Amino acid sequence: MRFRQLARRVEGSVKGKTKEKEKPRLRVVQYGLGPIGVAAVRAVLARPDFELVGAIDIDPEKLDRDVADLSGLKRPTGIRVSNRPEELLAVTRPQVVLHTTGSRLPAVFPQLKVCLEAGANVVSTCEELLLPSLRHPQLADQLDSLANGRNVTLLGTGVNPGFVMDTVVLLATAPCTELRAVRVERVVDAATRRLPLQKKIGAGMTRIEFKRKVEKQELGHVGLLESLHLVAAGLGWKLEDVEEKIAPVVLSKTVRTPYLTVKAGQVAGIHHTCRAKRDGKEFLSLDLQMYVGAKAPHDEVRIDGTPPITLRFEGGVAGDTATVGILLNMAPLVVSSGPGLKTMIDLPVPRFRASSV
Amino acid sequence: MRFRQLARRVEGSVKGKTKEKEKPRLRVVQYGLGPIGVAAVRAVLARPDFELVGAIDIDPEKLDRDVADLSGLKRPTGIRVSNRPEELLAVTRPQVVLHTTGSRLPAVFPQLKVCLEAGANVVSTCEELLLPSLRHPQLADQLDSLANGRNVTLLGTGVNPGFVMDTVVLLATAPCTELRAVRVERVVDAATRRLPLQKKIGAGMTRIEFKRKVEKQELGHVGLLESLHLVAAGLGWKLEDVEEKIAPVVLSKTVRTPYLTVKAGQVAGIHHTCRAKRDGKEFLSLDLQMYVGAKAPHDEVRIDGTPPITLRFEGGVAGDTATVGILLNMAPLVVSSGPGLKTMIDLPVPRFRASSV
Repeated sequence: MRFRQLARRVEGSVKGKTKEKEKPRLRVVQYGLGPIGVAAVRAVLARPDFELVGAIDIDPEKLDRDVADLSGLKRPTGIRVSNRPEELLAVTRPQVVLHTTGSRLPAVFPQLKVCLEAGANVVSTCEELLLPSLRHPQLADQLDSLANGRNVTLLGTGVNPGFVMDTVVLLATAPCTELRAVRVERVVDAATRRLPLQKKIGAGMTRIEFKRKVEKQELGHVGLLESLHLVAAGLGWKLEDVEEKIAPVVLSKTVRTPYLTVKAGQVAGIHHTCRAKRDGKEFLSLDLQMYVGAKAPHDEVRIDGTPPITLRFEGGVAGDTATVGILLNMAPLVVSSGPGLKTMIDLPVPRFRASSV
Repeated sequence: MRFRQLARRVEGSVKGKTKEKEKPRLRVVQYGLGPIGVAAVRAVLARPDFELVGAIDIDPEKLDRDVADLSGLKRPTGIRVSNRPEELLAVTRPQVVLHTTGSRLPAVFPQLKVCLEAGANVVSTCEELLLPSLRHPQLADQLDSLANGRNVTLLGTGVNPGFVMDTVVLLATAPCTELRAVRVERVVDAATRRLPLQKKIGAGMTRIEFKRKVEKQELGHVGLLESLHLVAAGLGWKLEDVEEKIAPVVLSKTVRTPYLTVKAGQVAGIHHTCRAKRDGKEFLSLDLQMYVGAKAPHDEVRIDGTPPITLRFEGGVAGDTATVGILLNMAPLVVSSGPGLKTMIDLPVPRFRASSV
């Protein structure tokens, strides 16, 4: 009885709830209907606090099709794919666009611009948008101005970059009075991931093909350097001497995934590292191993500090579902945040948000 | 070379830095000089970005003594303990008060009021301040009004409550598209903690003494219920059926700590749990075991969700140092936050902040 009363009081008094009560359903447009986009559609449709009001993709094969059809859902939604973003956004007036079309900022910049100009908040999985000022300071400034001008917020996020190798790392340092070094390791069994990701890490290639593609910057995990710099920015650490390496992982036996087969001696995936040194000593490193057949996947942060900290996700954080989860869970935080281009270190602690239970 | 340029760009463009550059040192008053307070003093003095400008305690034995003396430091600081908060705060005009005097809000309320009225931001380890609306909604409202009226921010935090059993738990749910149940377990070897904490958990008592003290609410971990409700509030979960239990942990062999000895058959500490049920089924539980001689201390969050998540601090997060770390690390975030009474779910991701390195 006593606790029941307490519970009711808390419900009414915790900050930030009022706003959400006034807007019980978040009007969402899904921009991009690749594997992550259709998973986001399914997740949005499953949540009573989200309302899907539109969907955008440039693929002519998807045009005018019901998103239910593309997402493997039986019941039609009435939401048909458009390839005219301006028009769709003007008509549907979403509060937030979930944007999942590409990794590189210059390529997706025009798409983001259209969304912001339409007065929509944007949460995007574009990897370079995690910290766009790193590689594209001018585009970042433009996006910030656009967002401020329309009083909306733009955020780049995802599971990686966006969570396990940056946001989580920063949180793990919170108990420290002194911090000397931070080491992050992520091991992912790519056999559990979608085909585009398996291709992006070179699964099934020869060593020579892999090397050639790395040189052309066509392979590798986009966003690792962004994570490194976001961690450094969050900690107030300057980075001067940074080394980035992409090496192939080659296994001695054949591995099969639902999508492809990697023969012994072929490339199974990548080992991608970013290391920062000061006076010749490494003080911040991100080590990412993503390959088909990886054993004991995990995410681990090891902190040499006072106190020392070891934080570990046993089994790791499952990639594609997790990206969709973070995308949706950041949406209400983005909507209630101040305007402008934000990063994960500007917003409140990311968290699941129940609809009504 | 390329990375050096990138690094410089990032330094200049990440949000929230400008403000800190304008105020290179945070002017701090330490309020409370118990074990946590003197540890905070040492940490503040060790950081070039903090400036200790005053110290307050009511203990007549500490009055007028140099804080260096109380903190075990050799070199005098010139900062002497005052027992007149109004006067000291008016003269020193700190940006932030680190407040570490007590666990219960009604007892510390007048102290917090004085700080806010003096126009200082406050970060406090008062356990009930983690979510003051839970037990003291009227006091919480008053504090919120006071803080808003003076355009300052008030936050309750610490390692527990404040971090391992609430903020970290919320972060661990961020990748989930669905969330069914959350279980949190913290096991602390109290032999590594300060004497007041060992006493607070009943170490060295008989079972009968322990039971009597629990009934009088003189024993137990203050803040576990606050953590439970903060997690629920962050997730948007309503709590209806909550059960709280405090049981003694009794060991079969004698354990010695630097402060006291617990004989076999005596109470070694507490097992404190809070469990929330819905339709008879537990969906949120916090399980805290704090006793001298606990083996394999750890903090673990297990999430039954999509995807499932297991997050673990190996060895746990060391209590007293960690509390000081979080207290100091939240200070810059509190100073740059909007005014009012805040909780850990209102502020950006907690993180260590380097001074200048």
